[in-house]
Amino acid sequence: MIKTDILIIGAGPTGLFTVFEAGLLKLKTHLIDALPQPGGQCSEIYPKKPIYDIPGFPEILAGQLVDNLMEQIKPFNPGFTLGERAETIEKLEDDTFLVTTNKGTQHNAPVIAIAGGLGSFEPRKPPIPNIQDFEDKGVAYIIRDPEVYRDKRVVIAGGGDSALDWTIFLADVASEVTLVHRRNEFRGALDSVEQVGELSKLGKVNLITEAEVKELEGGDHLTAVGIKHKTKGDIRLETDYFIPLFGLSPKLGPMANWGLEIEKNAIKVDNSYDYQTNIPGIYAIGDVNTYKGKLKLILSGFHEAAIMCQSAYQRIHPDKKYVMKYTTVGGVEGFDGTKKEAKKEVVKAII
Amino acid sequence: MIKTDILIIGAGPTGLFTVFEAGLLKLKTHLIDALPQPGGQCSEIYPKKPIYDIPGFPEILAGQLVDNLMEQIKPFNPGFTLGERAETIEKLEDDTFLVTTNKGTQHNAPVIAIAGGLGSFEPRKPPIPNIQDFEDKGVAYIIRDPEVYRDKRVVIAGGGDSALDWTIFLADVASEVTLVHRRNEFRGALDSVEQVGELSKLGKVNLITEAEVKELEGGDHLTAVGIKHKTKGDIRLETDYFIPLFGLSPKLGPMANWGLEIEKNAIKVDNSYDYQTNIPGIYAIGDVNTYKGKLKLILSGFHEAAIMCQSAYQRIHPDKKYVMKYTTVGGVEGFDGTKKEAKKEVVKAII
Repeated sequence: MIKTDILIIGAGPTGLFTVFEAGLLKLKTHLIDALPQPGGQCSEIYPKKPIYDIPGFPEILAGQLVDNLMEQIKPFNPGFTLGERAETIEKLEDDTFLVTTNKGTQHNAPVIAIAGGLGSFEPRKPPIPNIQDFEDKGVAYIIRDPEVYRDKRVVIAGGGDSALDWTIFLADVASEVTLVHRRNEFRGALDSVEQVGELSKLGKVNLITEAEVKELEGGDHLTAVGIKHKTKGDIRLETDYFIPLFGLSPKLGPMANWGLEIEKNAIKVDNSYDYQTNIPGIYAIGDVNTYKGKLKLILSGFHEAAIMCQSAYQRIHPDKKYVMKYTTVGGVEGFDGTKKEAKKEVVKAII
Repeated sequence: MIKTDILIIGAGPTGLFTVFEAGLLKLKTHLIDALPQPGGQCSEIYPKKPIYDIPGFPEILAGQLVDNLMEQIKPFNPGFTLGERAETIEKLEDDTFLVTTNKGTQHNAPVIAIAGGLGSFEPRKPPIPNIQDFEDKGVAYIIRDPEVYRDKRVVIAGGGDSALDWTIFLADVASEVTLVHRRNEFRGALDSVEQVGELSKLGKVNLITEAEVKELEGGDHLTAVGIKHKTKGDIRLETDYFIPLFGLSPKLGPMANWGLEIEKNAIKVDNSYDYQTNIPGIYAIGDVNTYKGKLKLILSGFHEAAIMCQSAYQRIHPDKKYVMKYTTVGGVEGFDGTKKEAKKEVVKAII
């Protein structure tokens, strides 16, 4: 069982910065995230896109912001449970919380900070009635290990970067790759679009546009897909795998059942004081929370994290009074023994 | 008369970032600051000191943060009234405000954002009963033009960098420089302390430590100071100027008389919604405000600025509804005709 002072659910920018603010208060932190790497949307959805409204950065790539935050929190050695989704929460007799992930990892802490962004990102599924029957039996929404498809027949669906990039990659791995897209235009890097066009001309990729996969066939495993073409009618295609890559969409997920007050698909908090939810000891910060006037901005998540950590400190140390010191004055003392601080003024006797 | 949408009082980090958030909403801004340059304390007091708790910067010099913010707000062309202090405020019949500075400059706006930090920085004065009688008659707290002291006798008091640096500088300008300090230790750069020691040995600076200026003499102009020495008793020294350099201390100043609700030397605001004061249309953001749980952090000022601008927008455009667009999606359109935006995805037909 992993024990910490503040268990942070969600490792996006807000969750990461919480580690820093907690660290200044000498509180230990551990983060859980369903994605395999820290950074949330910034890393997963738009790492190469610029953000213009992070204060002090006229422009910064989302991925760079995450790298900077990881560097900033390094002195506080946070723990990470990545690629697992926080599934259940339980209040223990000692007034602490037990959070268990979908893979069974248990975490225990007196304070929970939900920094879950728009929720955990789940693949958008195409509306094929029996698609669930073939999940893990030929249908996959995310490619985790491309070797699975070596020398197999694969049908990919989608028109974005993900569909284009995997089509190019699997052209060298699979025995047969078909890319199905409902338009004859793609939304992706020019480069990738041209490469797929080239592979199609060379006969290395079977490109079917203005078409959609509408049916799945098979028994224990997928054997064929039924494709509806805009002008050419129905096409039946034998295949081992069908991989629809239609992007990820955020879902509040299991948290929605934790007894928290939910409003507009977000967790309601008391913004007049400390961003605490209706359950004492559970806070919600960043895009996942809502209150009157809420702005879903990264810079607001940073502020909410700072305020929330002060309240968490009081919960964890009810008898102590924390006196805030400015980092410029007091420096930053890492849990790893490092100390950053401004050069002190020199005091020297001259008489 | 200067007219704008949001008149920002205080050009520290919070005031500067307000320009950006207002600009995204197409609101024009103008800043007033008592200091001669933007940046507030960050520029005036500790430009070369590192700050460690600005999100996304593991370390940044205060002066650099100001430079970055100035770059970030450049597209929104803010106006500046610098070196003047906002003195009076008046509500006009059209529900806008008229703010006049100590130099008589008038500003008119429907919304006032007070981002005044800890207040305007005023020199700390030594407790000499008749010191006010000699202000501008031989006593100065700030050196604006060192040429004033050419070939004159000058007594400087203080033990910090400012006293040390001006002693060194004026040793070449004035006919006689005396540095009086109540300890025999100085708090300043090693280099400066050594230089003053050297100048003292060479007889170029008259150094009197463990002593304090306690009396001022003169008629229309200062003629002498009375110094109390810890062990040697009283010293009378003829001089043309006395310059006590004891640092700056923040004062809320004239704002304290604007009818705003004041608590603990700060302006009380409604943090449960928009950081508005008890006077509708006047907001207070950053270190100048107070509410339950307030943290005087730069990052909190940034959040308060963003929230406050949304409310200001509603006040200025009661009939419009603003739909927030992320800068990553919508870009930043400057008032100067510039446009920053993320590279759009390429859409290209390949069949």
